[in-house]
Amino acid sequence: MSSYDVLIVGGGIVGLSTAYHILKKDGSKKVLVIDKSHGIGGGDSGKSAAAFRAFFYSRTNLALAHSSIEFYKHVQENEKFDLGMLFVGYLLIFDKEKYNRVSKVITDLKHRGLDCSEFEPEDLAKKLGIRTSLAGDEEAELMGLKDPYRGIYIPLAGILKPENLLEYYSREVQKLGGRIEFDTSVEKFIIEPKKLTGIPGEPFPWQEAEIKGVITNKGEIRSEKVIVAAGAWTHKLLDPIGIDCHSKPKKRQIFTIPASKPELNKLLYADGINKYNIMPFILLPGDVYLRPEPFEKAFWVGLSDDLGRPFILEENPQPEEKYYMYGIYPVLHQYFPQFTDMWPSSMWAGHYDISLDGQPVIFEDYNLIVSAGTSGSGIMKADAIGRITASLYYGEREAELYTGEAFRVSDLSLQYRKVEPELLII
Amino acid sequence: MSSYDVLIVGGGIVGLSTAYHILKKDGSKKVLVIDKSHGIGGGDSGKSAAAFRAFFYSRTNLALAHSSIEFYKHVQENEKFDLGMLFVGYLLIFDKEKYNRVSKVITDLKHRGLDCSEFEPEDLAKKLGIRTSLAGDEEAELMGLKDPYRGIYIPLAGILKPENLLEYYSREVQKLGGRIEFDTSVEKFIIEPKKLTGIPGEPFPWQEAEIKGVITNKGEIRSEKVIVAAGAWTHKLLDPIGIDCHSKPKKRQIFTIPASKPELNKLLYADGINKYNIMPFILLPGDVYLRPEPFEKAFWVGLSDDLGRPFILEENPQPEEKYYMYGIYPVLHQYFPQFTDMWPSSMWAGHYDISLDGQPVIFEDYNLIVSAGTSGSGIMKADAIGRITASLYYGEREAELYTGEAFRVSDLSLQYRKVEPELLII
Repeated sequence: MSSYDVLIVGGGIVGLSTAYHILKKDGSKKVLVIDKSHGIGGGDSGKSAAAFRAFFYSRTNLALAHSSIEFYKHVQENEKFDLGMLFVGYLLIFDKEKYNRVSKVITDLKHRGLDCSEFEPEDLAKKLGIRTSLAGDEEAELMGLKDPYRGIYIPLAGILKPENLLEYYSREVQKLGGRIEFDTSVEKFIIEPKKLTGIPGEPFPWQEAEIKGVITNKGEIRSEKVIVAAGAWTHKLLDPIGIDCHSKPKKRQIFTIPASKPELNKLLYADGINKYNIMPFILLPGDVYLRPEPFEKAFWVGLSDDLGRPFILEENPQPEEKYYMYGIYPVLHQYFPQFTDMWPSSMWAGHYDISLDGQPVIFEDYNLIVSAGTSGSGIMKADAIGRITASLYYGEREAELYTGEAFRVSDLSLQYRKVEPELLII
Repeated sequence: MSSYDVLIVGGGIVGLSTAYHILKKDGSKKVLVIDKSHGIGGGDSGKSAAAFRAFFYSRTNLALAHSSIEFYKHVQENEKFDLGMLFVGYLLIFDKEKYNRVSKVITDLKHRGLDCSEFEPEDLAKKLGIRTSLAGDEEAELMGLKDPYRGIYIPLAGILKPENLLEYYSREVQKLGGRIEFDTSVEKFIIEPKKLTGIPGEPFPWQEAEIKGVITNKGEIRSEKVIVAAGAWTHKLLDPIGIDCHSKPKKRQIFTIPASKPELNKLLYADGINKYNIMPFILLPGDVYLRPEPFEKAFWVGLSDDLGRPFILEENPQPEEKYYMYGIYPVLHQYFPQFTDMWPSSMWAGHYDISLDGQPVIFEDYNLIVSAGTSGSGIMKADAIGRITASLYYGEREAELYTGEAFRVSDLSLQYRKVEPELLII
């Protein structure tokens, strides 16, 4: 039997960032992080598309992402820890109708000082070889695909290596005296009455009870405080004890397409868009995204489907080749003829942990802290989420983000939740 | 194959009230209600403790409950349809600490014109035989039970027969031309693209899709609009298509204790508290409730446990005798010595459908309307919930409640949710 000040269930990006920020504030805390997977990156964090942008309408989104990105930049540039972070930018490609819907939001963002620039269809065609006129194409017309009308290029955005980010936090946690144990899964929470009576069978429903630790496959772990940061697994841990984590898992898939043809190579290393001469992260009409993976000379492609895609947690979710074939490829090769007849060389699947409103959920109940619901933007917001969760642990009203901005901890709680809705729906 | 204007999945109190109010506004609508149970009251509505009160701090709670109660009163008194509605009142019994915590809230409610009166410990002892001093009782002290310090009696409150209320709406729906089919369960939703392409396998992820009906055990039912009002079953229907209903089921149990002793008979027919000379619905410190069931010469007792009680849906949830024995009885017999050695003559279990904040969730997504999350107060709020759901269906911004109050429909949605938190936590 071991005993800790803080036990963090989940060694993904949120758990590790939380452990780091708890220890950073007070290195004397005895902190243990446990994870059911075999090692760093074994869960959904490691399966992330790991793209980031500091370009959101919602002030909540912006604060969480921007401050985290600035911190990661600091880690890479000043601490010299390579996160594989490249500011290749985001390019959001809109059809005319959607552009008209979002253009006011984008104008507002420019007025707020967020940097972006517009690409005309000619730029899209010239710089990236995108097909900008689908008229007369029978398949495209049958599919109802729209012509690209405008690209919005966001420079403060890009990609990183999620496993490196996990390594960074993991190393720092251990430097600060924290422990991380893999292959350790929670079987049960230890629930005890606040005042023990000694009557066998307690806690009874008439007693006030709270969480005192967990039983794992390796034995009992007691802790003054338990923090559940288990991403898509959170509801599976908490439903049995009747605490609602307000998030649900959905499978997400990534397909790797090698840049094995000259025209694909040309696209991957597109000239003149950013200083690296690497194509930006591109979002197409029809919601297919295309991410450069320059380290592998490849592209990652994906698509977040919604209606009809079940909320379901799978121990080992499998990618579906048909999803690429019928869901992604038809859109991809229409806009990017370079991908004609290109099929994935590898693919994998993980989970988003989708919260009630797409923002993280960080709250305390029965002496248990929950930090979950990152909704697919966990990597890009993890540093801020860790700081806010640490502040909740220390009972602080406000968390100081890396940028110095004060973030009210209760804004991400359930009871006093105050998140700005995201109007830049891309 | 049949086709309807409105298909309502769930023939419990919310589904029936919704069907009624949709038809009341426009009798030409072709409305079908389906339910998987064998008949009226076969689901969780019929298993309700069916107590009501128009005494809440939250304006949302108050508006929904008060207007529904007034409507039920109208049905019973003016329409002469017996709902078994008795205004026996609620008696909330507080220990000193809890009384001090809620007394400001109660004063506020009095200032807002809500009627209540206070019972001193002597009244509690004299009128109801409640033990008001537990000092020196070893068991009570070990359990940490507190002395009753004050009772708050709420006259605009009481009990009704849930099956009668279900019968009322069911009869009215059919009178107005609506159909209700039992033994009909949803196997699958029909999801189709808004614009059909004719390509086999659609909808594809790049198509905009929506709900067009359901496949049931009895065949396909198409409907312009589908409304899911399936209470605790809602998430089970919606998780497979990836729509979050923001509510989860918890088992709740009711135990019947016959008034088989003179002292219990005296308690059940307590003199001088209300005009019926029936004891009020009583809530004890420790959260055990005691409901008079005068038609059966019995009491119903229950307790809503939280931490440790899993979120789980069971086809046929079973009451646990041990839950009475160790969870309820120890508290009950301490405060009411009349119950010493009394055991349940019958018992049953159903589900609460607990929403993110305890208020109903009523929203539309992908052409599907969800009306769920009644959180244990579905019976007392059903008329208002039905009116609000009907207004959402008709695209109205505001619903007119029975009391004439206008209720903004989006206040119970997810995206624009605006509910006042309940400060009278009893």
